[in-house]
Amino acid sequence: MEVLRVSARSRATAVAGAIAGVVREKRRAEVQAIGAGAVNQAVKAIAIARSYLTVDDIDIVCTPIFTDVIIGDQERTAIRFVVETR
Amino acid sequence: MEVLRVSARSRATAVAGAIAGVVREKRRAEVQAIGAGAVNQAVKAIAIARSYLTVDDIDIVCTPIFTDVIIGDQERTAIRFVVETR
Repeated sequence: MEVLRVSARSRATAVAGAIAGVVREKRRAEVQAIGAGAVNQAVKAIAIARSYLTVDDIDIVCTPIFTDVIIGDQERTAIRFVVETR
Repeated sequence: MEVLRVSARSRATAVAGAIAGVVREKRRAEVQAIGAGAVNQAVKAIAIARSYLTVDDIDIVCTPIFTDVIIGDQERTAIRFVVETR
């Protein structure tokens, strides 16, 4: 499963469109964010994706989990949001 | 339904304990955050609450929605997380 990576500078509506597209096709998407600004954009994107998907009668929920990622040679804790249809 | 309000200075583990307590009793909790720092703490708290609740065999998912709130005489957009058992 491809992971959508979100940064603090990501546009929430663009990420929302990507989430909606993946969910329409695979019923599931994964979104990853590191840091408060990125997590905030990811959450806004998921909220917007919900409204995009109501048109398709798809109701999504998400599950935030911690995950360790290596950036360069540093270990960082990311939040991964598993987005699924209800 | 009482809403758990989270700020950027909230301790994620303390909020997680509160979420787990409300979910155990009512199978549902609502968590509200305004701003990136608060949203980040809320998401971390939900991720931690998930691990607290596995002991009780309770699996939670969340749904982020936008909501307008009045703070003083200003309208702000908050994120409300509806936390439910799967």
